[in-house]
Amino acid sequence: MPETWRERMYRVIFEAETPLGRAFDVGLLWAILLSVGVAVTDSVSTLSPATHRILGRLEWAFTLLFSAEYVARLVCTPRPSRYALSFFGLVDLAAVLPTYLRLILPGAESLIVIRTLRLLRIFRVLKLARYLGELSILTYALRASRRKVTVFLGTVLIMATILGALMYLIEGPERGFTSIPRAMYWAIVTVTTVGYGDISPQTVPGQVLAAIAMILGYSIIAVPTGIVSAELVEAARKPPNTRTCHECLSEGHLPVARYCRDCGAELRSLSPLSDQS
Amino acid sequence: MPETWRERMYRVIFEAETPLGRAFDVGLLWAILLSVGVAVTDSVSTLSPATHRILGRLEWAFTLLFSAEYVARLVCTPRPSRYALSFFGLVDLAAVLPTYLRLILPGAESLIVIRTLRLLRIFRVLKLARYLGELSILTYALRASRRKVTVFLGTVLIMATILGALMYLIEGPERGFTSIPRAMYWAIVTVTTVGYGDISPQTVPGQVLAAIAMILGYSIIAVPTGIVSAELVEAARKPPNTRTCHECLSEGHLPVARYCRDCGAELRSLSPLSDQS
Amino acid sequence: MPETWRERMYRVIFEAETPLGRAFDVGLLWAILLSVGVAVTDSVSTLSPATHRILGRLEWAFTLLFSAEYVARLVCTPRPSRYALSFFGLVDLAAVLPTYLRLILPGAESLIVIRTLRLLRIFRVLKLARYLGELSILTYALRASRRKVTVFLGTVLIMATILGALMYLIEGPERGFTSIPRAMYWAIVTVTTVGYGDISPQTVPGQVLAAIAMILGYSIIAVPTGIVSAELVEAARKPPNTRTCHECLSEGHLPVARYCRDCGAELRSLSPLSDQS
Amino acid sequence: MPETWRERMYRVIFEAETPLGRAFDVGLLWAILLSVGVAVTDSVSTLSPATHRILGRLEWAFTLLFSAEYVARLVCTPRPSRYALSFFGLVDLAAVLPTYLRLILPGAESLIVIRTLRLLRIFRVLKLARYLGELSILTYALRASRRKVTVFLGTVLIMATILGALMYLIEGPERGFTSIPRAMYWAIVTVTTVGYGDISPQTVPGQVLAAIAMILGYSIIAVPTGIVSAELVEAARKPPNTRTCHECLSEGHLPVARYCRDCGAELRSLSPLSDQS
Repeated sequence: MPETWRERMYRVIFEAETPLGRAFDVGLLWAILLSVGVAVTDSVSTLSPATHRILGRLEWAFTLLFSAEYVARLVCTPRPSRYALSFFGLVDLAAVLPTYLRLILPGAESLIVIRTLRLLRIFRVLKLARYLGELSILTYALRASRRKVTVFLGTVLIMATILGALMYLIEGPERGFTSIPRAMYWAIVTVTTVGYGDISPQTVPGQVLAAIAMILGYSIIAVPTGIVSAELVEAARKPPNTRTCHECLSEGHLPVARYCRDCGAELRSLSPLSDQS
Repeated sequence: MPETWRERMYRVIFEAETPLGRAFDVGLLWAILLSVGVAVTDSVSTLSPATHRILGRLEWAFTLLFSAEYVARLVCTPRPSRYALSFFGLVDLAAVLPTYLRLILPGAESLIVIRTLRLLRIFRVLKLARYLGELSILTYALRASRRKVTVFLGTVLIMATILGALMYLIEGPERGFTSIPRAMYWAIVTVTTVGYGDISPQTVPGQVLAAIAMILGYSIIAVPTGIVSAELVEAARKPPNTRTCHECLSEGHLPVARYCRDCGAELRSLSPLSDQS
Repeated sequence: MPETWRERMYRVIFEAETPLGRAFDVGLLWAILLSVGVAVTDSVSTLSPATHRILGRLEWAFTLLFSAEYVARLVCTPRPSRYALSFFGLVDLAAVLPTYLRLILPGAESLIVIRTLRLLRIFRVLKLARYLGELSILTYALRASRRKVTVFLGTVLIMATILGALMYLIEGPERGFTSIPRAMYWAIVTVTTVGYGDISPQTVPGQVLAAIAMILGYSIIAVPTGIVSAELVEAARKPPNTRTCHECLSEGHLPVARYCRDCGAELRSLSPLSDQS
Repeated sequence: MPETWRERMYRVIFEAETPLGRAFDVGLLWAILLSVGVAVTDSVSTLSPATHRILGRLEWAFTLLFSAEYVARLVCTPRPSRYALSFFGLVDLAAVLPTYLRLILPGAESLIVIRTLRLLRIFRVLKLARYLGELSILTYALRASRRKVTVFLGTVLIMATILGALMYLIEGPERGFTSIPRAMYWAIVTVTTVGYGDISPQTVPGQVLAAIAMILGYSIIAVPTGIVSAELVEAARKPPNTRTCHECLSEGHLPVARYCRDCGAELRSLSPLSDQS
């Protein structure tokens, strides 16, 4: 029966509970890593033409493999259109398209376009996310502190704008600060403590402002760290605090409690989430 | 009646509960962002004169818009002088003045002055603070740890002074460390891990001192981070600890408790603040 | 009576409870800051000889002032030798000695020595520590995590040694890595994320090792931060945990408890320390 | 009896409870540090030949000392093969081998090989780990957060790949970004906030991407810090939370509780671990 065949295929490709499903996922993981390695290596222009030819063939092999995987996913999903329009569906398609487009657009002038398209193959890496369950815990903590982080980033950008405008006035175009956007680039390089040194203040007031910007940046580095730390500490402590009575919906029962303090109903066992973290 | 008209205008401009009030705030937010964008872009000297002319007109449009807003705020506030002297009142005024002053002072020699005044327009960005409620949570945490941060910044400055003076002695004016202030600039660049590389030690003792300064800076980066983290963790834990009996004013009741442990009075429900964070 | 006079003087100079004592401390604080400012400014060689002459006189004025203060402290302390040998006693002496030594050693060839001695005046800044009570809280947290920080610093040094030795082998003396100590300097510059760029790897294996060193440094930056954060969070939580019954010495009573759970004795009120932090 | 002699030797060499055992460990610690110092100093080519000769002899002295120690360890262990194949057994062997191999391979062409082998002597430093008990606490916290850190490092690498590929397209080989691997090196230098400045973007889109990369790196620095902080805070809080009833094995008893809330059995005293941290 075709139904059973598709169901079995679905379990192998989309799930990872069966030995075959695990083997498929691990194999795909390695294929993705190797294909990214091939794309990265191919960009080194000092390699011999023979090496480039081998890398080109490997690229085709990986493209055909990922095309087969994409078709297989489409075939075995109960709702193909939903998969095709999902984030990973689009990434899977974007990972194979560039190599094919190169055949259709062979003109010399389209080289740069092809280079851009080939780049998209890098996004195959994103497929790794599917295989790393731990990522979800970090993502949860980041999402919980999303609004605070947005406000923080806004503050950094406002600071970069003010510092950049001041520096543009102090140092002027003669010393590398040719425009406010360029001075803002300097401000971000400084506040984030990266410090390339490609543009740096040379006058005394400029160096005083730079010193203030550095200490400011050094101090506010504490803010996002504090936000995420507090969120993760909170997440580690949450399970007992969100323990809820299923009868009267009262919250915050101690982990030791067996009966609800408010209505006397028996409390269910703690979720195993507290042991996982 | 003019009274009712001013009250309605006050609600639209100063508050954000009504749909019209929200729309006004969001519109103003975008106008501020765009006007800052225009000021920043205008500083790029490589743009064509036509572009500069368009940007100059946009600047006038934004200035007239913000002037109208400033007058409207003055008109509808019950106490105009209080608004005019408040922080945001002064910022609102500073955001429109530079463009007008340019008309009064048209001489060629006042170009640099105008540049300085135009810069103040950047402070329009500060008005953003009014629209971001989340900012207050971070501000609270920073204010709570203000004294500790001050002590910490003082320590950093003392360290920069001692390190700069030592480096001035070790490397001397021949290798870029021309004075103690300049050596202090180097020390701040190093301790904050920015590291421009515009001045760097070249002798062996100088590099040893630089290595010590780096490890010191790397280690004390932990201090402000720890302060803010502890403050935010504390803030997240506070609600249950500050739960107060309204009868006997005893504090620190567990979130599960329904009756005061000290006087037996019924405790009111927890503030929703603990869910917001 | 001379006794009472010395006692009053002691209270003004060493304590800060009386209005006069506070005024003395604040005045001294400003004198220290100004004298450091004079020493720092004096090192700028581009200033006019007239300015240098004024700065030299101000230096003498401050030296005489601090000498008078030093003698006053010696006079009014019950045990002068104990003060003279304490840390601040030695710092107070070191802050005035250099200017006097300049009179005894006037030769032209001793210029560099004088420069070194003048530097010690910078240590006057350290006297600030006496006036900042908050410093003790941070110092406590740092001392509590001292052993962990030592282990961490040791790890950083071992890592710098291994990375430096590997880099010395990979890049070699031709590309700036002239010796293992110099390569260790590079490793510290990199691991602490300072990144001057005065020495940087140019071969592919060298850049791979540098990338590993950066990510390592970036990751272990979390360790001291985590240590200090945990220590400060712990310090903020400690008061309720260390609440002790004065009868049976049982610990860890909840902040709400009025009677000891183990022996029924009344618990004393919480220390006000929990409100200070 | 040889048995007793080996047992006594075992206690001196492998344990640190007896005064002699402590003295042995401290002496060995200094020998390791000095031998590393000799190896590091020996790499400085500007030293006189006489100094190099003395350093060479010291190297031989340390090699013989560590050889004797290695043999002693092999002799007194009940199971020599287990020690020889353990991590520290291999490190102990690797620390002495290079100097001997230099005798067997005296050819001029093997100079580079010898240099590599001599480097291994640096690993003697790793033996320090045995003497620092505190290291285990940090190691525990790092191991507990290992999976989260792995996911985080994976994210950093994926980000470096995508940023590097984009930068390679934007800036191109003409401005230093000669290949994707080199652009990835730039991305890691930037995201980790090291910022050498040996390669830096020069076009406007490149600088915009660099600014995004910096703020990204600046923000995600919070993640590993948050992970380790949460883990250490958790470790500090764990003792009361893992307090277990020895009768019914229920967990999470409050530190004040004397009897199990679930079965009424008397709870044993808290472990002293909470005071150690």
